[in-house]
Amino acid sequence: MHHFRVKTEKGTYPVMVGVGAWRELRRFGTARYSSIFILTEGVIWKRWGQRFREESGLGAAQILRVPSGEGSKSLAQTARVAEALLKGGADRCSLLVLLGGGVVGDLGGFVASTYMRGIDYVQVPTTVVGQVDSAVGGKTAVNLDTAKNLVGTFYPPRLVLADPTVLGSLSGRIFQSGLYEVAKHAILAGPALFERLEREVQSLKPENAAALEDILARAVKVKIDVVNRDEREASLRQVLNLGHTFGHALEAASGYRRFLHGEAVGWGLLAITLLAERLGYLPSPPARDAKRGRASRTSDADRIRRLIWRLGPLPSIQDVAPGKIARLLIHDKKAVAGEIHWVVPERIGKVRVVTDVPLEMATGVWAELQQSASQP
Amino acid sequence: MHHFRVKTEKGTYPVMVGVGAWRELRRFGTARYSSIFILTEGVIWKRWGQRFREESGLGAAQILRVPSGEGSKSLAQTARVAEALLKGGADRCSLLVLLGGGVVGDLGGFVASTYMRGIDYVQVPTTVVGQVDSAVGGKTAVNLDTAKNLVGTFYPPRLVLADPTVLGSLSGRIFQSGLYEVAKHAILAGPALFERLEREVQSLKPENAAALEDILARAVKVKIDVVNRDEREASLRQVLNLGHTFGHALEAASGYRRFLHGEAVGWGLLAITLLAERLGYLPSPPARDAKRGRASRTSDADRIRRLIWRLGPLPSIQDVAPGKIARLLIHDKKAVAGEIHWVVPERIGKVRVVTDVPLEMATGVWAELQQSASQP
Repeated sequence: MHHFRVKTEKGTYPVMVGVGAWRELRRFGTARYSSIFILTEGVIWKRWGQRFREESGLGAAQILRVPSGEGSKSLAQTARVAEALLKGGADRCSLLVLLGGGVVGDLGGFVASTYMRGIDYVQVPTTVVGQVDSAVGGKTAVNLDTAKNLVGTFYPPRLVLADPTVLGSLSGRIFQSGLYEVAKHAILAGPALFERLEREVQSLKPENAAALEDILARAVKVKIDVVNRDEREASLRQVLNLGHTFGHALEAASGYRRFLHGEAVGWGLLAITLLAERLGYLPSPPARDAKRGRASRTSDADRIRRLIWRLGPLPSIQDVAPGKIARLLIHDKKAVAGEIHWVVPERIGKVRVVTDVPLEMATGVWAELQQSASQP
Repeated sequence: MHHFRVKTEKGTYPVMVGVGAWRELRRFGTARYSSIFILTEGVIWKRWGQRFREESGLGAAQILRVPSGEGSKSLAQTARVAEALLKGGADRCSLLVLLGGGVVGDLGGFVASTYMRGIDYVQVPTTVVGQVDSAVGGKTAVNLDTAKNLVGTFYPPRLVLADPTVLGSLSGRIFQSGLYEVAKHAILAGPALFERLEREVQSLKPENAAALEDILARAVKVKIDVVNRDEREASLRQVLNLGHTFGHALEAASGYRRFLHGEAVGWGLLAITLLAERLGYLPSPPARDAKRGRASRTSDADRIRRLIWRLGPLPSIQDVAPGKIARLLIHDKKAVAGEIHWVVPERIGKVRVVTDVPLEMATGVWAELQQSASQP
């Protein structure tokens, strides 16, 4: 079991990563709450509910289900969950336990942060993205009809429990998509984690919980280290946005249907790597004699690209025109006064934030990416 | 101009009360924001918009209107306002100015606290309740279909500007209803403010801004003093709930239609005063010789009752059965594990919080109040 602590403005909370993590709820002290509710998705509860009840000791908790899928991340669903909590007798001293993927985590965190102006909650993420990223840090969100994650709060959980066993029921595609976020963390973290990911990428399988535990723990630690230095995203935390500026635009361009979030981040990492090369921040691959070239001289840009491609096939971007990406980039939520904050890699283990990127350069990079991806 | 500062977890914000307060926005430094939006109600904007633009210097701000009335305090309206902000180009460095009554203040504060996970906002309350109470303290809220103020946040404004001039366009009834909150603050504050209210109650008229300024400032200071010692309502802040436990039950019992919030608080103050007497915390009026009785010997309970009745006629409670009040009391939002926290006066200037009140005693008090109020 890997044990971390996240600092917040009001204290700290533990993050446990490992097989058997759910049992930590027994030591958490649930007896102090007036009532306990578990917010989950039908499919997750059906597969894992019985085991979760047994391991966590929350036999008496009330279960609230929301439909799977991004559509549940809405203010309308917020109202429905809050009404259900009220009907179930939840008061200011109730606890909300979130057992599910990003939708349950984001929506449930938002509900917890606003129900009676805030109740305690516990994150029990059941996806790779949740376990290495979104369940940690206290960012909650729901979507508007026209924009993702536009309404939300900063509201830390009391506890995060990530048991990789639960990943065993994920589809291959959903599991893989989470690995792009792991790759993002590896680029931020530096050579040690990156090389390890390069070595072990073949063995990362949903059913292989024991092998996953350590790499998931290292990946989430990257996020925790950043969050511990900057809870509110004032500056440092924006490095976590690596790959997400293009990624969000791609998701929006395709109506949030074709790409899983992690897949869009995968494309975003490829795009930002190319942009970093064009900007001159990331050295391009050296022109080299084919005979004398050695793996150790592979450029960081190439290593990032290779890792992304080894994580699995990505859905095509051929019909997502550069002009469409451009229009969506300028509506980036994190833009301030129209200025986009680009997080660009300088090498594996180092990024910088730049704002003076001509939009034409970004769209040019996108066109280049489309072209290179269309080649066999 | 009266100038106060409210402490929060992250700093302080000023509260200005007085004729001309809107001009303070010129000194606030609005130039640092990427864009400015004014959220208001149609009727308020029609009457005061031009003047507000001139005095505040916010000539270029975009105007967003919500319908007047409690119906606007919803998650659906939150979505509409957030969509309008997004469409208008609001980003994380935009400012939201709330010009209106409690509905605009509560809804707008909630929107500000959740739009892109929080943007700055300024409260410009246009009702007595807003100016002496709800605009200060950072409590934001919207309603669920089945419960008032059940979803919200703690999120302080950057500035509160209360100009009593704006009260001049209030109807007599709405103006009067706010005075019950002033009376609540006077009971909490002590003899000085209470006696002053007793003396000046006749001269408190919507159109008399200059006369109102000082008493409104004293009333809001009561709230500020409490908030400065306990931002999160953990314990001390609950004294502000004086009169509100019965008041909320009465509002709910009548479907939030018959009583203005302040009027329900007026009844709530009468009820809690009677309950305090029955519990033995507030001495009942001494049996006294009619000849020798002097005003100075009037009991505090009688003084509270007289002041409430002098503030104006209250809508009848004759058909609000004690049993109905009882059922709603046990659903009080502030109850924890079913235990109601009653704030009861011990004398003018002192309250205590008690939990061991038999529900039958509360309903008995209600029946007694109905009976006494039905007598000529």
